[in-house]
Amino acid sequence: MDRIVVVGGNAAGMTAASRARRLDPRLRITVLEKSPTVSYSTCGIPYFVAGDVEADDLIAFTPARLRNERDIEARTRVAIDTVLPSRRRVEGARLDTGERVGWGYDRLLLATGVKPRLPEIPGTDLENVFSVTTLEDAVRLRPAVEAAERVVIVGAGYVGLEMAESLRRLGKGVTIFEARNQVMPSMDADMARIVEYELERHGVGVRTSSPVDALIGGDGRVTGVKSRGHPGAAPADAVLLDTGVVPNTALAGAAGVRIGATGAIAVNEYMETNVPGVYAAGNCAEAFCIQRRRPVIHYVGTVAAKQGRVAGENLAGRRSRFAGAVGTTVLKVFDMAVGRTGLCSNEAAAERIRAVSARIEAQDRAAYYPTARRIWVKLIADADSRRVVGAQSAGYGDVAKRIDVAAAAITSGLTVDALSQLDLGYTPPYGSLWDPLLVASQALLRKL
Amino acid sequence: MDRIVVVGGNAAGMTAASRARRLDPRLRITVLEKSPTVSYSTCGIPYFVAGDVEADDLIAFTPARLRNERDIEARTRVAIDTVLPSRRRVEGARLDTGERVGWGYDRLLLATGVKPRLPEIPGTDLENVFSVTTLEDAVRLRPAVEAAERVVIVGAGYVGLEMAESLRRLGKGVTIFEARNQVMPSMDADMARIVEYELERHGVGVRTSSPVDALIGGDGRVTGVKSRGHPGAAPADAVLLDTGVVPNTALAGAAGVRIGATGAIAVNEYMETNVPGVYAAGNCAEAFCIQRRRPVIHYVGTVAAKQGRVAGENLAGRRSRFAGAVGTTVLKVFDMAVGRTGLCSNEAAAERIRAVSARIEAQDRAAYYPTARRIWVKLIADADSRRVVGAQSAGYGDVAKRIDVAAAAITSGLTVDALSQLDLGYTPPYGSLWDPLLVASQALLRKL
Repeated sequence: MDRIVVVGGNAAGMTAASRARRLDPRLRITVLEKSPTVSYSTCGIPYFVAGDVEADDLIAFTPARLRNERDIEARTRVAIDTVLPSRRRVEGARLDTGERVGWGYDRLLLATGVKPRLPEIPGTDLENVFSVTTLEDAVRLRPAVEAAERVVIVGAGYVGLEMAESLRRLGKGVTIFEARNQVMPSMDADMARIVEYELERHGVGVRTSSPVDALIGGDGRVTGVKSRGHPGAAPADAVLLDTGVVPNTALAGAAGVRIGATGAIAVNEYMETNVPGVYAAGNCAEAFCIQRRRPVIHYVGTVAAKQGRVAGENLAGRRSRFAGAVGTTVLKVFDMAVGRTGLCSNEAAAERIRAVSARIEAQDRAAYYPTARRIWVKLIADADSRRVVGAQSAGYGDVAKRIDVAAAAITSGLTVDALSQLDLGYTPPYGSLWDPLLVASQALLRKL
Repeated sequence: MDRIVVVGGNAAGMTAASRARRLDPRLRITVLEKSPTVSYSTCGIPYFVAGDVEADDLIAFTPARLRNERDIEARTRVAIDTVLPSRRRVEGARLDTGERVGWGYDRLLLATGVKPRLPEIPGTDLENVFSVTTLEDAVRLRPAVEAAERVVIVGAGYVGLEMAESLRRLGKGVTIFEARNQVMPSMDADMARIVEYELERHGVGVRTSSPVDALIGGDGRVTGVKSRGHPGAAPADAVLLDTGVVPNTALAGAAGVRIGATGAIAVNEYMETNVPGVYAAGNCAEAFCIQRRRPVIHYVGTVAAKQGRVAGENLAGRRSRFAGAVGTTVLKVFDMAVGRTGLCSNEAAAERIRAVSARIEAQDRAAYYPTARRIWVKLIADADSRRVVGAQSAGYGDVAKRIDVAAAAITSGLTVDALSQLDLGYTPPYGSLWDPLLVASQALLRKL
């Protein structure tokens, strides 16, 4: 009866545990989680903060249900600090009692996720300064922002923008400070402008090219944000830091598990690390980029869950492979859907791809149909291979569909020529005779 | 200054004319159309009948605008009855005056579309019996159905189902008679049942396995429908025939243009017929099926428009190729979206594919998100190659996205294994951590 130990009970870890259980009912499966909760939707946190859903709605399985329905032992508030590969054993402490605890394993999965990368500026330790990577963080954040009038968000990545919407919908004054000259650094500047417009339309202050130098406070509590290029300090009753995350690799590193050039745990396509019997999956691990043919880091739940599923199959004795990812992400920013897949222009340039791009504006369905909405689609191609290498879209209509189709096209290595004739569905209520993706392909073909 | 003549001014014909004009401003381009209108959205007709849009909304270009903005001469109510390839000339009659007219051409495009295939039963010539393939038909139909209380629709294809919704929304009693044992013959029976449920939920009578033997009338006007297996006659103030269409090939055939085994005009990938200088495109022409590697007929506007675009480029002197289609269609049936792409089970069986399928039910986005809706997804794979060969979906949520992604996967020849790990976008408002397509792929993998 093999013993499977999983460190980390979120997207990758819980998916792996559940998948292993499904494939082998005899395994002894233990999931060890530092936070008070396992098996919740991290991506749902902004909707919890906005009050659309309750925290419980985001939790798929409690430890009790995992035990009863899946025969998985999930232990929360257990902080593993030691892996002893030679003894196939993990050790740590119960956070409630401080008691030392340990588990032997036959196969171990590290699914330790990420931690916030806090900026190196004064004041991040002030009261009412938050970062949100876990549900626990969000539960702490919510009463504080409810009591606040003015919230400053530092950083304009996905979480920052989603939280801007959530906080605005709670009636808060919201200002975003972003060091770079655009929001959404994983998109091209021209597409990011469209998102900035939507933020501003909904009363969010957007301060790009505005690195934050200090959080200032009084009586130990944050009161404002000082940023280069802005006189005085922007007042803030609470500050949310969305300044990036880094993989949690300390446990792995101390155990002799190799950390890749990206800073995340190096794994092969079976999600195996260099240490026998030790696997890694999720945002603490590298993910193979289908386009760049090398490992990268994707901080998204979908990749974490897919890696977890592959890891779970292999923990149960299969030889399943993770196929890799193309960097697909979508998000909602007020009334606007935003998405990207493949490489953006900067990323293509970094790969020395001779990139050509075209951006079009179109209705997302028959223009005469009452629910038609405007979207923008940008496509990027490799002028040498003619392959589609990236797609970005934003707008008030069905953006997610175009991003997903583009993700399939990029994964398959379709050329712009092939994409431009793709047999996509059409009926006036759900699409256009010439889908915006096809129109964008046509525009791109004129430049190739 | 080459003369381009296009017979038929709808999806394929107008797209071709516009594309040719864009590529070569010197061409003399004439479009000859039998009906009173060119350049309208055939797919929008049900929404005109329902009163969602006006007829004018469906018309993209009038002849005046085509002349002024695109330098295209569009002549309506001109019925071409003769092609003289040896003299490179077409001849016909003005329907208003009866006057004989003719045009010389250097290159001719036949985009003559389809005509209804009327059932060989008594009564189809009664008053208030309609078929709808043109906007003109719909304009005639609308006052008649507005005055009707009970409408019978014969045939449960796309148009029949869309019109059932339109008429029901006008408050009419609607009954559909379908000879086969399911609606939507291009979908599998289990998926068709889901659509039948939706029709019945909205008060549409669905009579499958009910071939209509006769339309009966009084004073020359239809009063009812007699069907095998039903005692008496179903009363009807109007009857709409959706008993299929056939390509308009008489003109082509008489000119020595080869008609293919499908019954449509045979064309090569350049949309050339066997007769030098004569092209064909749209629903009168065969379309190459990417999966079956042979010509088929697709009666959809998207394929017609794509063929028209290719034909237009070649009319202007390019050598563009039509890549083929995979049979993607989507439609709206009341609150339900319905779609299919690739081969359905019957079609796969006809190709001697060892087909395996799986159907799943899922929420179309994060189950806890307030706008999550239920959809069903069915995937069909070739057990030998493991390739995805078909996808069908129906439900109250985002069906079109899954169908389009499946269309891209099928076109690219993706295996179920590859589809099951496709990097699709996710955020709770627009999708699921495990997209329903991925879940369906996983279900299918268990059977392969």
